[in-house]
Amino acid sequence: MKKPQPRRIYVPGKLHPDIRVPFREIPLEGNPPLRVYDTSGPENADPKHGLPRWRHKPSPVRTQLQFARDGVVTPEMEFCAIREGFPPEQIRNEIAGGRAIIPANVNHPELEPMIVGRAFYTKINANIGNSEVASDIAHEVEKMRWAIRWGADTVMDLSTGPNIHETREWILRNSPVPIGTVPIYQALEKAGGKAEDLTWEIYRDVLIEQCEQGVDYFTVHAAVLLRYVPLTANRLAGIVSRGGAILAKWCLAHHEENFLYTHFHDICEIMAAYDVAFSLGDGLRPGATADANDEAQFAELKTQGELTTIAWEHGCQVMNEGPGHVPMHLIKENMDKQREWCHEAPFYTLGPVVTDIAAGHDHLASAIGAAMIGWYGCALLCYVTPKEHLGLPDRDDVKEGVIAYKIAAHAADLAKGHPGARERDDALSKARFEFRWDDQFNLALDPETARKFHDETMPQESGKLAHFCSMCGPHFCAMKLTEEVREAAMRQKSDEFKQGGGEIYRKT
Amino acid sequence: MKKPQPRRIYVPGKLHPDIRVPFREIPLEGNPPLRVYDTSGPENADPKHGLPRWRHKPSPVRTQLQFARDGVVTPEMEFCAIREGFPPEQIRNEIAGGRAIIPANVNHPELEPMIVGRAFYTKINANIGNSEVASDIAHEVEKMRWAIRWGADTVMDLSTGPNIHETREWILRNSPVPIGTVPIYQALEKAGGKAEDLTWEIYRDVLIEQCEQGVDYFTVHAAVLLRYVPLTANRLAGIVSRGGAILAKWCLAHHEENFLYTHFHDICEIMAAYDVAFSLGDGLRPGATADANDEAQFAELKTQGELTTIAWEHGCQVMNEGPGHVPMHLIKENMDKQREWCHEAPFYTLGPVVTDIAAGHDHLASAIGAAMIGWYGCALLCYVTPKEHLGLPDRDDVKEGVIAYKIAAHAADLAKGHPGARERDDALSKARFEFRWDDQFNLALDPETARKFHDETMPQESGKLAHFCSMCGPHFCAMKLTEEVREAAMRQKSDEFKQGGGEIYRKT
Repeated sequence: MKKPQPRRIYVPGKLHPDIRVPFREIPLEGNPPLRVYDTSGPENADPKHGLPRWRHKPSPVRTQLQFARDGVVTPEMEFCAIREGFPPEQIRNEIAGGRAIIPANVNHPELEPMIVGRAFYTKINANIGNSEVASDIAHEVEKMRWAIRWGADTVMDLSTGPNIHETREWILRNSPVPIGTVPIYQALEKAGGKAEDLTWEIYRDVLIEQCEQGVDYFTVHAAVLLRYVPLTANRLAGIVSRGGAILAKWCLAHHEENFLYTHFHDICEIMAAYDVAFSLGDGLRPGATADANDEAQFAELKTQGELTTIAWEHGCQVMNEGPGHVPMHLIKENMDKQREWCHEAPFYTLGPVVTDIAAGHDHLASAIGAAMIGWYGCALLCYVTPKEHLGLPDRDDVKEGVIAYKIAAHAADLAKGHPGARERDDALSKARFEFRWDDQFNLALDPETARKFHDETMPQESGKLAHFCSMCGPHFCAMKLTEEVREAAMRQKSDEFKQGGGEIYRKT
Repeated sequence: MKKPQPRRIYVPGKLHPDIRVPFREIPLEGNPPLRVYDTSGPENADPKHGLPRWRHKPSPVRTQLQFARDGVVTPEMEFCAIREGFPPEQIRNEIAGGRAIIPANVNHPELEPMIVGRAFYTKINANIGNSEVASDIAHEVEKMRWAIRWGADTVMDLSTGPNIHETREWILRNSPVPIGTVPIYQALEKAGGKAEDLTWEIYRDVLIEQCEQGVDYFTVHAAVLLRYVPLTANRLAGIVSRGGAILAKWCLAHHEENFLYTHFHDICEIMAAYDVAFSLGDGLRPGATADANDEAQFAELKTQGELTTIAWEHGCQVMNEGPGHVPMHLIKENMDKQREWCHEAPFYTLGPVVTDIAAGHDHLASAIGAAMIGWYGCALLCYVTPKEHLGLPDRDDVKEGVIAYKIAAHAADLAKGHPGARERDDALSKARFEFRWDDQFNLALDPETARKFHDETMPQESGKLAHFCSMCGPHFCAMKLTEEVREAAMRQKSDEFKQGGGEIYRKT
C-alpha cells in the first residue's frame, strides 16, 4: 500500500467564503498531519492560460491601507489571517498602523495574498530577470515557478533586456505571489541606456504601464539625493545598486535633485490608484563590509523615513529596502535605525552579506546576516544566490538561494517566537528520534535533497525502516542507545519517586 | 606571460630560528601581495613517508600550560604568534591564564602549531572517520588532506570501524594540524560494542595507546554524571551524543558514577605526560532546538567547569565542548554561561544548528549559529556537513562543510575585530570594484568555485578582463556607472571645497 503523500489543501474564509487559502498538509505516521505555509501556487496550471483569477477590483480603488484605516477587513486581509494563524483584526490593525503591507495590485487577480510585517512569518524574495548576456522568457517564467515551489514569498522581475514587457506579462499571469519590479530599469532602456537622458515623463509612463499590468510593488530610489552622492566618493566600493548608480549619475549630470524625489507626490498618486506598494530603494547601500553603516547609507535611510510618511498620507503601503554588505556587529544598528526613522514600516534587506570573501557561496554568507536581521525584526529578506557577484543564477542556484533563505527566515521565526514556527521543528525532531525517515524528509524544507543524501549511503528501501543510520552503523547508534537510556531512566525515576515521596528530580 | 599565482611561503622565527611558519601569499595586480593564514600543510608530501618531523620532545615533558606559567615562550608559542600577528608574550599570557590552548602532543612532531582562544582567529574543526557501513583508510587520509586544503584548523578522527589504530597512524603522520579523537569509541570496540562492559582499565589502555601515537586532543565525556541522565528523559530528542549515550548507558547499567569522572585525576596525569589537551565533552548537548539550554545541558556544563579547574591543577590544557541544536535567541546564553562557569577556558561548539528543518543543508543552518557564537567568543567551531543527520560525508560534503565554517569563522573575526581579519575583505572588495577578476577569485575562500561560476556565463578569457560582468551586461553595470559617479563627485567636491572654504561634506 502506498503511503499518503504531502498534498496541497485549501481552507475557506469565514468573512469571505469565496477565498481559498492554500496549505501543504504533511501526513505523519502515527501522528496528526501537519499543515504548513505553502507558496507554490495551484498545481497543473497551463502557463499559456495563466492562473485562475479570483480577486475582484474594488471601485473606486482603495488601498489595503485605506481599507484598514476605515476598519474594513478585506478578502486579502482574511486570506493572510488564515495563512498566518492570526485573528483578522490583528492583520487589519498592523496594516492600518503601517507596520505591515499586503502587496496586491488590483490588476493582479491571480494573487494568493501574503503579508509582510515583523509580527508575521519572515518572508523571502527571489530575484529573477534576464540580462543582455543570457536568458529568455520561458526560462524566466520557469524560474519564477521554480522559486515559489521551494518557498519564495515574492518574486522580483529584474529584467533589463529586450521583451521586458512580454516577459513581465507572462510572469504576472502565472504568479500566485506578489511580483516586484524596479521601474527605472525599463525607463533606462526607453532612454536609450543613457542615465542622463532619463526624464520624469519617461519614468511616469513606465510606472503606469507596469501598474496596469499588475505589478504588486515597485522599488523606487527616491531617497538618493544629490547631496548624498559625494558622500560615497571615499567608499571602497562606491555605489553598487544599479538603481542608485543610475539616479546618482542623473543627479550629477544635471546637477539637479533626483526627479523621483521631486515628483514623489505624483508617484504616490499613481501607485495609490492601483494599490501598488512602495519598496523605497536603498540606492546607496554598502557594497563592501568596509562601507557599512556609513554617512551616505544612513543619510538615505533618513530620507526613506521622510518619504514613508508622505506615501502614507497618500494611502500607499510602504516598506523600506536595506543593505547589503554588513559585518555581524553592525547589523542590529540597521534594524534599530530603520525602525525608528521609518516609523516601523516593514524592512526589506538584501542579505546582509557578513563578509566579502565568500564569492561562490554568498547565499550562505548572506543567510547568516539575513537570519540575524530577521530575528531583529526585518520582515522580508531578499535572497542571494551562489552566483552573486559572479554571474547569472541558473535553476540550481535559484533553488540554493531560496532554500538558504527559507532556513534563515525560519530560524528568525523560531528566535522571534512566531507562534506557528516551533511545531514543524518539533515534528521533525520527533520523527528523527523515532526513525521515521519518510516523515523526516517530508518535514524538511528540501525533502528531495534530504532523501537523496540518505539514499546515497543506504539506498535500500529497508534503510528507511532501519532503527539506525549510516553515520554510526547498527551497533553504535546514539539515538538507539538513548531509547534504552530513556527506558532505564524512567525505571530509575519511578523508583526514586516511590522512595522520595513525590519529588521527581534529584536536585543537583 | 603567465601571471604569478598564490604560493606557500615560510616566515622564520626570531626566538626560535628553526621554526618555519607557513602563509599563503596572494599576488595582486597593481597592489602589494596579501599574506593569509594557511592550514594546507607542506606540498608534495608522500603520504607513505609522512610529513617532515621538526618538533623536539622536551625531557622531562612539560605542557604548553606549564611552560607558559613558568614564563617560557616555546617554539610552538612563537609559531602561533607569527601566524596570528600577535606578540609572543601575549600568546604565552593567554595560555598561562587558561584562555587559550595549543593542542600539541609531544609525539606529533609533524605538527604546525595553532592556537585556540577567543583572542585569536576563530578556528574550525572538520570531522572525518569511517563507520561500519562505509569508508576505508586511504579514503580517510585523503579526506583529512582535503579538509585542511580548504582551511580546517584541526581534524577529529571519529573512526569506529576496523583498522582504527592503523587509520589513525596514517592520519597523524600526514597531518600538519592537530588531530583530536574520542577515545571512548575505541574503548567500546574493545569492550565488544557493549557499553556496560566498559571498564576504566580498557579506557586507560586506549588513552595511553593514543597518547603514544600523537593524538593532540581528546574528547572526554567526564561530566555526564549519573544524576544528570534522568534529566534527559522528557526531552524531545534525548541524548544525541554518541559518547554521552555510551556513558549514560554505563552509568545506568551499573548504577554507579561515570568512571571518567571518578578517574579524572588519573586521566589528567596520563594526558599531562604527553601534553594532550582536554576537550571536555558535552554528552548531554541538545539534539533538537526544543531541548536547548535545558537543565541536563547546563548541569553538565557546570561540571565541565569543575573538571576544568582540576585539569589545570595537573598542568593540562583544556577546552570545553558545547552544543548542538540551539535557536538563535538562546545562543548567547551558552557562551556567557560557559565563560563564567568554565573560567574563560576556550569554548568549542558543534554549530549550533539554529533550526531542525534544514536536513540536507545543515552545514548552512549551523553556519548561522557558528558565526554568531564565534562573534560572541567561541574559539573553535566544529563543522557540520550537508549530510549531517542523513549519512556519511563524501569529498564534496567535506569541502562544503569546511567552506561554510571558514565563512562563519571569518565573519566572526570581522565582527569581533581580529586585527588581521579586515584586510582580506578590503582587498577583495577593491579587486571587485576594479574588475580584477583573477585577484577576486584568488582572494575568495573558494577560488575554484568562484572562477567556475564566473566562467559559466562568460567563459572567454577576455571575460576576466572585462569592465563589467554577466549580471548586468556591458551597458548596465552599476560598478562601471559608479566609476563615472566617483569622477563627477570628485569634481563636484573639489568645486565645493574651493567655494566653501575647506568644508569637505555638506551637512545633511
